[in-house]
Amino acid sequence: MINKRLGILGGGQLGKMTCLAASEIAMSVSIMDHNRDDSPAGNLCTSFVAGDITNYADVMSFGNSVDILSIEIEKVNVKALYDLHEQGKTINPSPGIISLIQDKSLQKSFLIDNNLPTSEFVKVSDKVELMDRFNSGNIKFPFVQKLCKDGYDGRGVLICRKFADMNEAFDAPCIIENLVDIDHELAVIVCRNKFRQTAIYDVVEMVFDPNANLLDFQIAPATLDTFQTLKIQKMAYEIAEAIDLIGILAIELFMTKSGEILVNEMAPRPHNSGHHTIEACQTSQYENFLRSITGLPLGSPETLSSSLLVNLLGSQDYQGPVNYSGVERILSIPNTHLHIYGKPTSKPFRKMGHVNVLNPAKNKEIEYLNEIKSSFKTYK
Amino acid sequence: MINKRLGILGGGQLGKMTCLAASEIAMSVSIMDHNRDDSPAGNLCTSFVAGDITNYADVMSFGNSVDILSIEIEKVNVKALYDLHEQGKTINPSPGIISLIQDKSLQKSFLIDNNLPTSEFVKVSDKVELMDRFNSGNIKFPFVQKLCKDGYDGRGVLICRKFADMNEAFDAPCIIENLVDIDHELAVIVCRNKFRQTAIYDVVEMVFDPNANLLDFQIAPATLDTFQTLKIQKMAYEIAEAIDLIGILAIELFMTKSGEILVNEMAPRPHNSGHHTIEACQTSQYENFLRSITGLPLGSPETLSSSLLVNLLGSQDYQGPVNYSGVERILSIPNTHLHIYGKPTSKPFRKMGHVNVLNPAKNKEIEYLNEIKSSFKTYK
Repeated sequence: MINKRLGILGGGQLGKMTCLAASEIAMSVSIMDHNRDDSPAGNLCTSFVAGDITNYADVMSFGNSVDILSIEIEKVNVKALYDLHEQGKTINPSPGIISLIQDKSLQKSFLIDNNLPTSEFVKVSDKVELMDRFNSGNIKFPFVQKLCKDGYDGRGVLICRKFADMNEAFDAPCIIENLVDIDHELAVIVCRNKFRQTAIYDVVEMVFDPNANLLDFQIAPATLDTFQTLKIQKMAYEIAEAIDLIGILAIELFMTKSGEILVNEMAPRPHNSGHHTIEACQTSQYENFLRSITGLPLGSPETLSSSLLVNLLGSQDYQGPVNYSGVERILSIPNTHLHIYGKPTSKPFRKMGHVNVLNPAKNKEIEYLNEIKSSFKTYK
Repeated sequence: MINKRLGILGGGQLGKMTCLAASEIAMSVSIMDHNRDDSPAGNLCTSFVAGDITNYADVMSFGNSVDILSIEIEKVNVKALYDLHEQGKTINPSPGIISLIQDKSLQKSFLIDNNLPTSEFVKVSDKVELMDRFNSGNIKFPFVQKLCKDGYDGRGVLICRKFADMNEAFDAPCIIENLVDIDHELAVIVCRNKFRQTAIYDVVEMVFDPNANLLDFQIAPATLDTFQTLKIQKMAYEIAEAIDLIGILAIELFMTKSGEILVNEMAPRPHNSGHHTIEACQTSQYENFLRSITGLPLGSPETLSSSLLVNLLGSQDYQGPVNYSGVERILSIPNTHLHIYGKPTSKPFRKMGHVNVLNPAKNKEIEYLNEIKSSFKTYK
């Protein structure tokens, strides 16, 4: 309910945009993160608590200060969430969902147990086990090694095509998947409240920059046929039911060159593949996230405009205090909406903001993308 | 420019929604108002300065701490603005525009001098002059007396139909207008930057509640024929050119029962008749206000959805700490967006928020209005 005190673990850009949506309805939001000055949400929450969201005592104390507890990043102390839940605290999404998603091997097992399509995998405990299984022919090139825990924005992922690549292999619990022959990367967001009311957004298509290994641009809705769209949305619905979701869940998918759809991974929080929903959809993912975790009726996820979303990254050749330039040129592109996250320090390829272009003319997409990427700089 | 420090005099709901738009692009906004806790913008600005915006020294000191100075309410110390401008400070809109609009008799003279349609008026200095002119037959029933300065939300306006009504007459400089036979009340918003780029929003229609004398609900766009719409938008363009507007200007108009369009009054700031632009238009009035005063290209004012806007007022029978109820029912109406301003204290008829219903079914408008008004309460 709107009068309750909401607490969110994490104060990055997803937390910031959640705070903006909460401010529209004067909902009180406390944020816990390391440092207010470095937190994009720091200046927009009702109260900021400096703390370590992976620390048991910090999360317990924060949880006890709010009515409803949620997250904007999965890497939180889940033991504290279980204990708070035990004590009767409302935690959405549930600690069970968060711990399921914190560990990629549990995620994969969940998908397989529920007959959801995903690439085959094996789990290895460390580099020694990886080498053993490789030498015994159980793992073959090309494969992908992913850390079970704490991977983020492409970190914790290693593609191995030849023996030399394995020098970089992680020495920690990992999953090993065959390298999939990807044609498209897709994502879908599903939101569900305690009354089992479910809102499913249109599927979006993401295009990655192989240099930065970060989402580079996104087209929404994805250019899929209706059958594929409905198949993916049905999958999202089934996952939300299977985990009894209260909150929001982003599901990243691969479409292989043979047309097969595979679930890659999931995130039980607002997601960068849903930034466009602020302007392009009837109800933004941030507003529906808030509505879902506080027991309010969900808003329509309907797409109102197609959109091209471009990430604004920290300039490659600069690290230091941020100073934006090129914004005037970007805003000269018709129907463009700028979002700057407000991070005080720029680092190469750091996510500093995004631009959402509504109803981009079909043949102009690459032109707009290049215009935006060449204009934006994070130094003077 | 996005790196400049913006200062805004006033921290009410218009300042709050401006701060939310600024936060999307990490633009630094300082707000001056009496008290942070009572200010809807207090928790959302980059810095809050407690002060009296009608006080010369307070405005001077605040102006000197920012790069660009603007307003969200006209009632500010304009002498300080002139002096700051003299010293080279960027002030948008200009002190000249603000002082023109602070005084209704100057506004009326401006309209008449520029051949813009408005009802005839006479100026009186006090109640004695009003009575003299009435007794000499210069003023006749029914007429409207409006305070030249500081009228707001229907305060400072008196309708006199008979002699007894004149007991309430203001004893201060006023304008006296013939009571117009109003068929509709309309409003249009125009935004213009220093490059003379101009964005004009669609005309909206306002319906007032005679009990509360506050905007009750609004339909956007107004149901006008194209000729009338273009006539009003052209008028808005001409006014913006005539005053060399840098910023945003709302123009309230009357359409008489004989179909005549008359300018009622103007406000050089974001306006309650533009709340719907957050969801219903390509670019919100708040975003275009920021773009205009900071020299950025304007966004399209295009209407994307029709909308029904309902003000949420403090419960008539209650004064005290706010506690919202009825929100769940309101959010069950399809395509509804809720805005709560976050005022800590509820008073009868105080503007506490608004609801914007997108694409309301034509025959459902009154049903939605009644549902919203009967559901919303500001006490438990």
